[in-house]
Amino acid sequence: MANNFNYYAPTEVIFGRDAELETGKHLKKLGASHVLLVYGTSSASRLGLLDKIKTVLTEEGLAVSELGGIVPNPRLCKVYEGIRIGKENQIDFLLAIGGGSAIDTAKAIAYGLAEPEHDVWELFARSRTAKKCLPIACILTIAAAGSETSNSCVITNEQTGEKRGYGNNLARPKFAVMNPAYTLSLPAYQTQSGCVDIMMHTMERYFTNSGNMEITDAIAEALLRTVMKNAVILRDDPDNYDARAEIMWAGSLAHNDLTGCGNDGGDFMTHKLEHEMGGMFDVTHGAGLAAIWPSWARYVYRDCLPRFVRFARNVMEITISESDVEIAEAGISAMEQFYRCIGMPTNLRELGITPSDQQILEMADRCMAACGSRTGSAKKLKALDAVIIYQNALG
Amino acid sequence: MANNFNYYAPTEVIFGRDAELETGKHLKKLGASHVLLVYGTSSASRLGLLDKIKTVLTEEGLAVSELGGIVPNPRLCKVYEGIRIGKENQIDFLLAIGGGSAIDTAKAIAYGLAEPEHDVWELFARSRTAKKCLPIACILTIAAAGSETSNSCVITNEQTGEKRGYGNNLARPKFAVMNPAYTLSLPAYQTQSGCVDIMMHTMERYFTNSGNMEITDAIAEALLRTVMKNAVILRDDPDNYDARAEIMWAGSLAHNDLTGCGNDGGDFMTHKLEHEMGGMFDVTHGAGLAAIWPSWARYVYRDCLPRFVRFARNVMEITISESDVEIAEAGISAMEQFYRCIGMPTNLRELGITPSDQQILEMADRCMAACGSRTGSAKKLKALDAVIIYQNALG
Repeated sequence: MANNFNYYAPTEVIFGRDAELETGKHLKKLGASHVLLVYGTSSASRLGLLDKIKTVLTEEGLAVSELGGIVPNPRLCKVYEGIRIGKENQIDFLLAIGGGSAIDTAKAIAYGLAEPEHDVWELFARSRTAKKCLPIACILTIAAAGSETSNSCVITNEQTGEKRGYGNNLARPKFAVMNPAYTLSLPAYQTQSGCVDIMMHTMERYFTNSGNMEITDAIAEALLRTVMKNAVILRDDPDNYDARAEIMWAGSLAHNDLTGCGNDGGDFMTHKLEHEMGGMFDVTHGAGLAAIWPSWARYVYRDCLPRFVRFARNVMEITISESDVEIAEAGISAMEQFYRCIGMPTNLRELGITPSDQQILEMADRCMAACGSRTGSAKKLKALDAVIIYQNALG
Repeated sequence: MANNFNYYAPTEVIFGRDAELETGKHLKKLGASHVLLVYGTSSASRLGLLDKIKTVLTEEGLAVSELGGIVPNPRLCKVYEGIRIGKENQIDFLLAIGGGSAIDTAKAIAYGLAEPEHDVWELFARSRTAKKCLPIACILTIAAAGSETSNSCVITNEQTGEKRGYGNNLARPKFAVMNPAYTLSLPAYQTQSGCVDIMMHTMERYFTNSGNMEITDAIAEALLRTVMKNAVILRDDPDNYDARAEIMWAGSLAHNDLTGCGNDGGDFMTHKLEHEMGGMFDVTHGAGLAAIWPSWARYVYRDCLPRFVRFARNVMEITISESDVEIAEAGISAMEQFYRCIGMPTNLRELGITPSDQQILEMADRCMAACGSRTGSAKKLKALDAVIIYQNALG
């Protein structure tokens, strides 16, 4: 029986060349008055985007404050800094310029400013649910995290080394400006990490034991095939605008919940396992996902065999007529081969980290603590399972 | 080069069994106070839905007024009646219960109530653009029109026989309740007409000379294949809940603009040609589309050959290795065959209408008048082209 679901992806997408020029007009229409720009360490200013946006906003009569220097695996300290700036300046709208790190930081700041009497980390520590959130918009310069249309954000508490996600529809951006031209200059490693992250957002929803909506699966498979094809194009031709456009739009659709409708929440354990690697070693998120996925997949596929067989057939184009187990294994190997072909790691050694036994135990414990009751759908994992998956991924 | 596009589909979808029970809560959350229920001639009351919803709304302390009796190809007179009732009762929210006719009528009433100083027909006559619209929600009982998430509505002016559409994001429903169980009792002809309409909403966007986003095309093809598969299941097993769920969700995705991103507006001439048939003969919309599409397709495919070849290969599974023209023709014939296989007409005679030469000329003229400057993308049509397409469709 098809599962019930809610689908809510209200973000207006303004996609294409020069789309960023509409930013001021849209903010104005939505009632913004004093906007906090949130951006990273280099790309926004290097691309000339920061100055352009400040001009566009000022022309619309909007006041502008700034919080730069957001790094990958964005830190809680910058969230607190943003909240402080926001309070001092009566900020009423957040505008992130960058990728997932800038957007996630803006979301966390928006929560913090809307309920200033609370510590925003409580949301990530699962001790409280958000009741309000300031409005957010973004200008995307990295296709990967899907945060531009998603309800989620991930923040690292640098005091404790915990990397935690929080999801709530209140934080869905009001609009997302997506000009693929701003992703042309992204280095190969970041580009391909982004492609892995995009695919994984859909694969997390796909590998489930409770999903059975054909249209959702067919769209998911179409998305995965499209991303794989265009990831290879970008490996050889990074300046290909059309391929950048495909990846950019796929990144939003992969994580706005479209590819999970009727799939009851998906698995998401690859993400949870990677979050601990990111929290402890500060690796690039997508590369971390590629490094841990094969180990996860080989550990769980027998418990979710029909989906792994379907994945092998419809996404990885496995045509052998062997047993389901062999078809599923061939599909996993083909994905591993694809990761290699786009320069992504397939284990922790290739990722450049060698966690000690103690660190593996610690990551596994933290991972389970972060999961609460949601420990997977393809296979429900316990701490010992996580230990084995990390162990098997060492390479 | 990938086209720029805007995508905005903010409707919250509440999908599945008993979803209708959440209606009151959602209306309350959105600030509704006095709700106008808009529904058709039979299904809402026959299904027991009307009483259930009135109870649910009353329990939330909402005041309720009613406008029943909406018919297919919904009439302007009912829109005026709704506006009158709305003014008399200080209606602040519209709730449609039914399919496209009820929802489209609710949208038109919502425009009329938001700008009471103007005649709402001016929007459809293209002499004015809407600046405001009252909020709308809907409970879907017929999967077809896609109006539950779309920005468009189509109303027939029974005085002039004109059937005209108007689209504006202001009228996108705030939420759509979609319980597939309420479509189980739909007669076969309505069910299959709905499937044709759903497919056509995506085909209209697909057959274009300006689209080139691979991910959009791949999603469109996935959707079309899924609808075809489930239409055949419902032909043989109309009580199949899962197939009803697939069709219902496909109906929203087919018309919320997802399958047109980057495709520059699509063609939509099959719809425009059918609107005149519906305005003059009051035929079932989806059946009318099936009856006119083969003639349209054979008339235009040489001007949009790559898309028709792709359609034949990826949707209709044509595997012959002949010329592009032959592959395209085989694809059109296969779609015609599919229409027959689900009991749909493939020409006007099978549809049950035999327009005179004078009526064909009149429909062609009106069609062009309704199109304004947007006369197709697969091939730009003139009045003479429309005449020939109607003529070739006589059967």
